[in-house]
Amino acid sequence: MSKKERNLYLTNVPLKEAIESYIDGVMPNFKGFETEIVPVSESFGRKTAQPVFAEISAPHYNAAAMDGIAIHSEVSYGATETTPVLLKEEKDYQIINTGTPLKPEHNAVIMIEDVVEIDEETLEIRHAASPWQHVRPVGEDIVKGELILSESHIIRPQDIGALLSGGVHQVEVVKQMTVGIIPTGSEITELMRPLPDGKIIESNSKMFRALLNTYGALGKPYPIVIDDPEQIGKAIAKAVNENDMVVVNAGSSAGTKDYTVDVLREMGTVHTHGVAIKPGKPVILAEINGKPVVGIPGYPVSAYVVFEQIIRPLVYAFREENLPGIETLKAKLVRRIVSSLKHEEFIRVKLGKVDNRWIVTPLNRGAGVTMSLVRADGILRIPQASEGYDKGAEVEVELSRPLETLSNTLVSIGSHDLVMDLLANDLHKYDNNLTLSSAHVGSMGGIISMKQKECHLAPVHLLEEKTGVYNLDYVRKYFPGEKMCLIKLVKRSQGLMVRRGNPKNISALTDLNKKDVMMVNRQKGAGTRILLDHLLKKLDINPELLQGYEREMTTHMSVAAAVKTGTADCGMGVESAAKAMELDFIPVAWEDYDLLIRAEMIETEEIIKLLNVIKGPRFQDQVMKMSGYDCSETGNILAVE
Amino acid sequence: MSKKERNLYLTNVPLKEAIESYIDGVMPNFKGFETEIVPVSESFGRKTAQPVFAEISAPHYNAAAMDGIAIHSEVSYGATETTPVLLKEEKDYQIINTGTPLKPEHNAVIMIEDVVEIDEETLEIRHAASPWQHVRPVGEDIVKGELILSESHIIRPQDIGALLSGGVHQVEVVKQMTVGIIPTGSEITELMRPLPDGKIIESNSKMFRALLNTYGALGKPYPIVIDDPEQIGKAIAKAVNENDMVVVNAGSSAGTKDYTVDVLREMGTVHTHGVAIKPGKPVILAEINGKPVVGIPGYPVSAYVVFEQIIRPLVYAFREENLPGIETLKAKLVRRIVSSLKHEEFIRVKLGKVDNRWIVTPLNRGAGVTMSLVRADGILRIPQASEGYDKGAEVEVELSRPLETLSNTLVSIGSHDLVMDLLANDLHKYDNNLTLSSAHVGSMGGIISMKQKECHLAPVHLLEEKTGVYNLDYVRKYFPGEKMCLIKLVKRSQGLMVRRGNPKNISALTDLNKKDVMMVNRQKGAGTRILLDHLLKKLDINPELLQGYEREMTTHMSVAAAVKTGTADCGMGVESAAKAMELDFIPVAWEDYDLLIRAEMIETEEIIKLLNVIKGPRFQDQVMKMSGYDCSETGNILAVE
Repeated sequence: MSKKERNLYLTNVPLKEAIESYIDGVMPNFKGFETEIVPVSESFGRKTAQPVFAEISAPHYNAAAMDGIAIHSEVSYGATETTPVLLKEEKDYQIINTGTPLKPEHNAVIMIEDVVEIDEETLEIRHAASPWQHVRPVGEDIVKGELILSESHIIRPQDIGALLSGGVHQVEVVKQMTVGIIPTGSEITELMRPLPDGKIIESNSKMFRALLNTYGALGKPYPIVIDDPEQIGKAIAKAVNENDMVVVNAGSSAGTKDYTVDVLREMGTVHTHGVAIKPGKPVILAEINGKPVVGIPGYPVSAYVVFEQIIRPLVYAFREENLPGIETLKAKLVRRIVSSLKHEEFIRVKLGKVDNRWIVTPLNRGAGVTMSLVRADGILRIPQASEGYDKGAEVEVELSRPLETLSNTLVSIGSHDLVMDLLANDLHKYDNNLTLSSAHVGSMGGIISMKQKECHLAPVHLLEEKTGVYNLDYVRKYFPGEKMCLIKLVKRSQGLMVRRGNPKNISALTDLNKKDVMMVNRQKGAGTRILLDHLLKKLDINPELLQGYEREMTTHMSVAAAVKTGTADCGMGVESAAKAMELDFIPVAWEDYDLLIRAEMIETEEIIKLLNVIKGPRFQDQVMKMSGYDCSETGNILAVE
Repeated sequence: MSKKERNLYLTNVPLKEAIESYIDGVMPNFKGFETEIVPVSESFGRKTAQPVFAEISAPHYNAAAMDGIAIHSEVSYGATETTPVLLKEEKDYQIINTGTPLKPEHNAVIMIEDVVEIDEETLEIRHAASPWQHVRPVGEDIVKGELILSESHIIRPQDIGALLSGGVHQVEVVKQMTVGIIPTGSEITELMRPLPDGKIIESNSKMFRALLNTYGALGKPYPIVIDDPEQIGKAIAKAVNENDMVVVNAGSSAGTKDYTVDVLREMGTVHTHGVAIKPGKPVILAEINGKPVVGIPGYPVSAYVVFEQIIRPLVYAFREENLPGIETLKAKLVRRIVSSLKHEEFIRVKLGKVDNRWIVTPLNRGAGVTMSLVRADGILRIPQASEGYDKGAEVEVELSRPLETLSNTLVSIGSHDLVMDLLANDLHKYDNNLTLSSAHVGSMGGIISMKQKECHLAPVHLLEEKTGVYNLDYVRKYFPGEKMCLIKLVKRSQGLMVRRGNPKNISALTDLNKKDVMMVNRQKGAGTRILLDHLLKKLDINPELLQGYEREMTTHMSVAAAVKTGTADCGMGVESAAKAMELDFIPVAWEDYDLLIRAEMIETEEIIKLLNVIKGPRFQDQVMKMSGYDCSETGNILAVE
């Protein structure tokens, strides 16, 4: 093996410093943007390249500002309530509609409401008209030659109206900034079915294009390039030639196949390789022919963070525009977060408003976990100099969903089941303005969150060993003197998931003891783990002797996935997960999966809507279509005091 | 004349009530939106029509999470600092890069940093590896069958990444809401050159399309329809058939040619005709075939207000989406605003941050003044039940520019000159983040605003009659004991503007006395008015005897426009305005047009930038290209104490 080929030495430049010195380095060589002429009707959102002046006045003639009659003011002189004046059509007045041009001999308009009809051709007025009353004089709105828009102005809808009214039909604008996107990596591919092992679907470049769209820039994707320095170089040369900026994804790290930095060094200048952020550290800030070229790490979350934290400010800086602010929210952290002093860290978090306080729950920090970006309501930024935040700290979160949406969110923290996804979907369909957000921390985690008022709902399935009753005893124990309710959601079948055909011939929990059986477990505090431990104890099986007992997964589906792919032979979980993953299932027990809630919440608008969905046939039909559920008590409410 | 044809009776329904009852009326008949299938890569901003589940797991194989070696954990057992274990390539380990699949016989990865090379084929390790360490198991990110996005979710960049990673390549989305736009009116036209009197350029439909774009809807413009009930009806029928919603502009009012409401009554139901808003009252809320059809008044400002206040909430309501909030700002009102109890009023305002307070200045309230929309920084809403606000009141303004831009704005209030437009443009070019905002209230208005700390700069040209000196005496008089500065901007030539060839043979101010000469004047407090009055006094001319003396315009260009179009024979103004409007000019006096500023401001970053622009050759070159200016003192600073 050849360690020498690896780029082991990444710098650790603080984020702000890295961006500023990069801009300072490249900007003087950056040639700026070309301009183009577009029709005004297509100019929305574009930036003017020149000041724009009115080509005609608006109105360009003297126009009636009211429906009525046009006169010369002199014919009205002397008219009062006691000395009305009679006017003759044609000779003295002309009927006129709003917007119609005045004849040269007229200089005033009297409103139709202020005239009295005497006969077909005669009107009476009782007030004198002053010259130019109810007349829109030429140029009242826009005067020919007047500045309508200054240079470098981003065109809004109202500007389009004014330009057209001012006789301007085309406008010189700055060309939209284009960013070439080069996906690299021998392992990445466009969609193939089936997808061979070792191949990864290329998704980042499409995410980049959408992100650039939100920055008002145009992403231009190039074909995937394999891990070959020469081909990477060719692709970069072409993209630099055709765009204002280029991003190369990935190969920016320090592995044996990470050629990007060497190629960039050869073709131009590498300003920085390695920024003190997590995720996203192995970013490369380079320059070729006076254009910024950025190497971006491959993991989707790292790539996303680098885009939002580095590419976004770069795009605005090169366009010489203010970076728009991001909406933030102050909220209370539900648990301690530890971070290194080495880097600035970006944590995906969920937010919820419970008991009139905003609550922050951190999500999985893995750089590969794309779904954490989907689930996140915002990003919590931990500065480089900070070791993290304590539980209960007030922190500021940058929002990735609108505040309105977050305010209308029911927060569920607790056990995971597929019916919770179904419920979230149906509730959102029932009321588009209401969202159910779930965090999966196991039943005991849900109890604790509810105790600390961090959630509205806690899905739980906790077996009391002595009584064999689900949930009730736990609620009584943890909420003494508090009024709580259990919304009966489903009964579900728990058991052992095994591969199709049951190759290891597993028929009961006692088979976990077999030498050739590798199990996979759920995390501590999960109801399924408590159930398994309870059953093992009853069978007098020492869990420590079971192979794979220490390997913990946090959802039924991830246990099923481990079994499906053979990294385990069996695992405890619900029948619906087994069926979804096309596994065989050995039933072990039925359990009650309920929603714990504070009694005071039951009559809130949100919970009434939730109950409507739970009790409705649509939800229950869908539940019953999955295997291993019983809806006989669904929607019943059990008060616990 | 036939008054009976006019729809005199408009209702006056409060805005909120009108919208709510309209939605309640139409919604039950509204059939909703069709769906379509689009590639995920093109799905940004679209709304899911179905829940979306992962089609494959990600990763779909067990992958190395680090660069290093893949082993079965058993071969590492017993390795410690004192009892290292030797591993042989192929037999015990395989070199592996991040993301590469593990072979079935391996279940752990050791980082390259933790191995020591002994020879080409032998490595030493000093720590035991636990099973599955540094391995990304199947489904770690996304598990096949997992819910990625719920129904009615608006797709964000990160969602696109997750969908593709989950093997989803196309997605069923709700079709974008389309709004048919029908411009009506025999007087409106697409661009014609020259534009005949009585014709107005059709601009609203292009503004509507851009506004709809900001609401995420698609505006579909139809050809202009003349004022003919049959043709209007045909156009509406076609548009209703082809769109989810239709807007008809205009003919919504109560004039003899306003057919829209009758046509709509015949074709469907008119829920409301007349809403208690100003501008925008004669709006029509109708329904045809279960679709909303809205008649919108023709004046651009009314049309804009109706769009933002009525069409915008309708679009979101029919899509069943939360209406996004509009950024607001609390600020101090510089002058009293009177409003009627009859309606809710929407006033265009300018905003500026002066002396650390936000200041609101109302703009022209005319419904026809498109430029007030361009110049506005925001909209001040006066509730129906309110008579308005007092000077100094704290009011809340809905922003129409980003707060960042407003924070970086130099506020100029005072006299108007074309060089101020030039200066605004050049400053914005010099620093894209800096804006110069001008309100034209005359020199004395500028002095008063500066006194009350409502502006940063006040352009003034005020002649002290006794001394013949400009500005200095006024500043001393109005700012006793305060440290002020005058930035010398330009000397400019004032005189009489007359039509080409001077048809009325005007050679001096004394000719204003002639019987056949109609003049046009500037408003009281304008420096030009003060100069004229001063000169008339010296000549012993009684201004009250001059024809047109009472007709007041607020800018040089509007005076020039009045002369150009023959509504006046002459008017006092600057040479540059005469030249811009192709008029002849009779010089009368040179005057000093200076920028008044507080001394403490002179060294601020913004004013240093402004001075750089003023002193630069680009600005002065452009000034000198216009007629009637002298830059010999431009950029000098005169301290006044």
